[in-house]
Amino acid sequence: MKTIVQKYGGTSVADAKCIGNVADRVARCAREGNRVVAVVSAMAGQTDRLIDLASKVSREPAPKELDLLLATGEQASVALLSLALREKGIEAESFLGFQAGILTDANHGKAKIEKIDPSRVMAALDAGKVAIVAGFQGVSKDGEITTIGRGGSDTTAVALAAALKANHCEIYSDVDGIYTADPRICEEAKVQGRVTYEEMMELADAGAKVLHSRSVEVAAKFGVPLKVGSSFSDRTEGTWVVPEEEALEGTVVSGITCTTGEAKVAIRQVPDKAGVTAEIFKPIAKAGIDVDLIIQNISADGRTDLTFTVPKDDLRRAMALAEGAAREVNAGKVEAAGDIAKVSVVGLGMRSHAGVAHRMFETLAKEGIAIQMIGTSQIKVSIVIDIKFAEIAVRALHEAFHGCRP
Amino acid sequence: MKTIVQKYGGTSVADAKCIGNVADRVARCAREGNRVVAVVSAMAGQTDRLIDLASKVSREPAPKELDLLLATGEQASVALLSLALREKGIEAESFLGFQAGILTDANHGKAKIEKIDPSRVMAALDAGKVAIVAGFQGVSKDGEITTIGRGGSDTTAVALAAALKANHCEIYSDVDGIYTADPRICEEAKVQGRVTYEEMMELADAGAKVLHSRSVEVAAKFGVPLKVGSSFSDRTEGTWVVPEEEALEGTVVSGITCTTGEAKVAIRQVPDKAGVTAEIFKPIAKAGIDVDLIIQNISADGRTDLTFTVPKDDLRRAMALAEGAAREVNAGKVEAAGDIAKVSVVGLGMRSHAGVAHRMFETLAKEGIAIQMIGTSQIKVSIVIDIKFAEIAVRALHEAFHGCRP
Repeated sequence: MKTIVQKYGGTSVADAKCIGNVADRVARCAREGNRVVAVVSAMAGQTDRLIDLASKVSREPAPKELDLLLATGEQASVALLSLALREKGIEAESFLGFQAGILTDANHGKAKIEKIDPSRVMAALDAGKVAIVAGFQGVSKDGEITTIGRGGSDTTAVALAAALKANHCEIYSDVDGIYTADPRICEEAKVQGRVTYEEMMELADAGAKVLHSRSVEVAAKFGVPLKVGSSFSDRTEGTWVVPEEEALEGTVVSGITCTTGEAKVAIRQVPDKAGVTAEIFKPIAKAGIDVDLIIQNISADGRTDLTFTVPKDDLRRAMALAEGAAREVNAGKVEAAGDIAKVSVVGLGMRSHAGVAHRMFETLAKEGIAIQMIGTSQIKVSIVIDIKFAEIAVRALHEAFHGCRP
Repeated sequence: MKTIVQKYGGTSVADAKCIGNVADRVARCAREGNRVVAVVSAMAGQTDRLIDLASKVSREPAPKELDLLLATGEQASVALLSLALREKGIEAESFLGFQAGILTDANHGKAKIEKIDPSRVMAALDAGKVAIVAGFQGVSKDGEITTIGRGGSDTTAVALAAALKANHCEIYSDVDGIYTADPRICEEAKVQGRVTYEEMMELADAGAKVLHSRSVEVAAKFGVPLKVGSSFSDRTEGTWVVPEEEALEGTVVSGITCTTGEAKVAIRQVPDKAGVTAEIFKPIAKAGIDVDLIIQNISADGRTDLTFTVPKDDLRRAMALAEGAAREVNAGKVEAAGDIAKVSVVGLGMRSHAGVAHRMFETLAKEGIAIQMIGTSQIKVSIVIDIKFAEIAVRALHEAFHGCRP
């Protein structure tokens, strides 16, 4: 008897009809003889509606109250899915984060799961019931409701799968799986059968929105096999995310991603001395702002330009902090630009194929696209370009690495 | 230093602007040096929206899951009001039912409060904070979220006021206070300065929707003075609901109410034997259906007609149960009618003025309105009439007892 954790995203439970459809899927899995845990997100749009409401009563909503507010979204989904399952004759038990034993730190808005005590969920499964669990939320030591950040329901599902020693975890949304590129940009993009945890983490960080990278980290750490697919169709098998040893002979590049959610901040004339960069990033890190690419040129006259990218939503705060830091270290002025796109090429095969970066730059040069920033990891090359060239770049790179272009 | 519990109903927190307005009121009360607890309902319409959603995924939603769903309404209000208060520089701490120590039985959908452990709320007040508490919800011994029935937020507020030994409890909605009759029907109706607990209970049961009768019962039991008023205006002082000894010399009739939310069920040819009536009402009581008026005529030939009223929403269930019971006791057919209104005249003064019922019947006779059923209590006379005469009856009775008619 298999234990399977299924996670249904916001689009999968967007309305009563979608919820009925998810109930059918959960019921089918249970009737096939599996022990099923369904983790659900808030109905699509609900989290944004709640945030909008909060911003109407408060210019800077306090994270603790915001968590209390946002947690209602998943709570409603849990209740509705449980009702829909009962309607189909399936015995279901519903669990909020705290009832499912999801204990987090007290870092409201982006809490980390510290421990899961799955005994109540386990008892429901042992009693032959389906367990429905609210994603995205937990409880702190003080008994306060916390949320674990956007995309957190994926992490809830994977962490719960690890705690329950589930056979695997299925992540459902409205996307068929992990594509070689965004199919809305690149018609020829295909769903991949398998990618490795490592590739998936880089793909997620680089803008593939199907799966949250934190959840992949947890899956990798505990060896939980993931399946990513659509709750709306069975057209493809979806994509398995697995340890490297289980992956097929790797293609050189497994995916091309593009994100326009970042902005760049440039600090001019930074004194090129030990400790200065650390000084600049200290307040930004302290504010919990994610910095992705960081570029520092070799200095000419003892001063250098420092450029980095942050989420657009955090740009205003990042600017203010950067300006303060720049004054501290006697740097020049701070500039920002939001009209950028980050295009990344990800693949395990890169490790042994030094030519990937070269082919990438060559392809972009052929299209006449200027590269503003470059960042690399072991299995990823990211470039920042003008946002207006984003789609052209993705299509050209997909042709270059996957050999297909409309 | 006074401890004051304020309860804000759904219309008072209907949108961001209303919530800001409530925050102003709470802030003012706190700045005047009071220890303030604010109990909030779900935003107006939200509970109905959630019930509608539930009915779309389930023909007969299970009460436990429905509670989990509905509890999100008050949770959102609590979070939003806390945010709005912080915005105004007031330190607030938010509490869900379980966090506020509101322990109920496990009778989902209409749970009873068994005990309140107000220590966490008390600690927040001691720390100089305003406490914001979710109305309508509690937690059962098993740790499941319960709701305490419609209008339950009033009860939450009053019970909390009792547990905190508050000086008084203020109940705010969009109504200025307790009127002598519904001002939408009777222009001349006035807000009363004071009514007694007993009058208020009868008024509430008889259809005055301002205050839930359960909450008045709790207030009377623990001697919590209540103030009923509008969160939208300070036009009137509102109505104080107080023990009898504090009431002014009672007017004979303090209020005239009208409700159209009930239907009548008639069972024909019921054998007039001991125990038969009990037999008939057993299944209806067991199903938790509220029966209000019960009329049984003196029998002619060993058989009698039995008529009673139930909430319209429960009519279908009540009919089915009555039909079953009628077969059991060999009664005749069961008939139902929904086009009825119940008009009630309430007043402490009735005790000593036997003429109230007579004046009531005379007034209706003068208007040519036929009386279908009559029910009386010590301080109330209710009559059931054709729904189309409801407004005429209210106006005529208001003139007869309060001497004003448009």
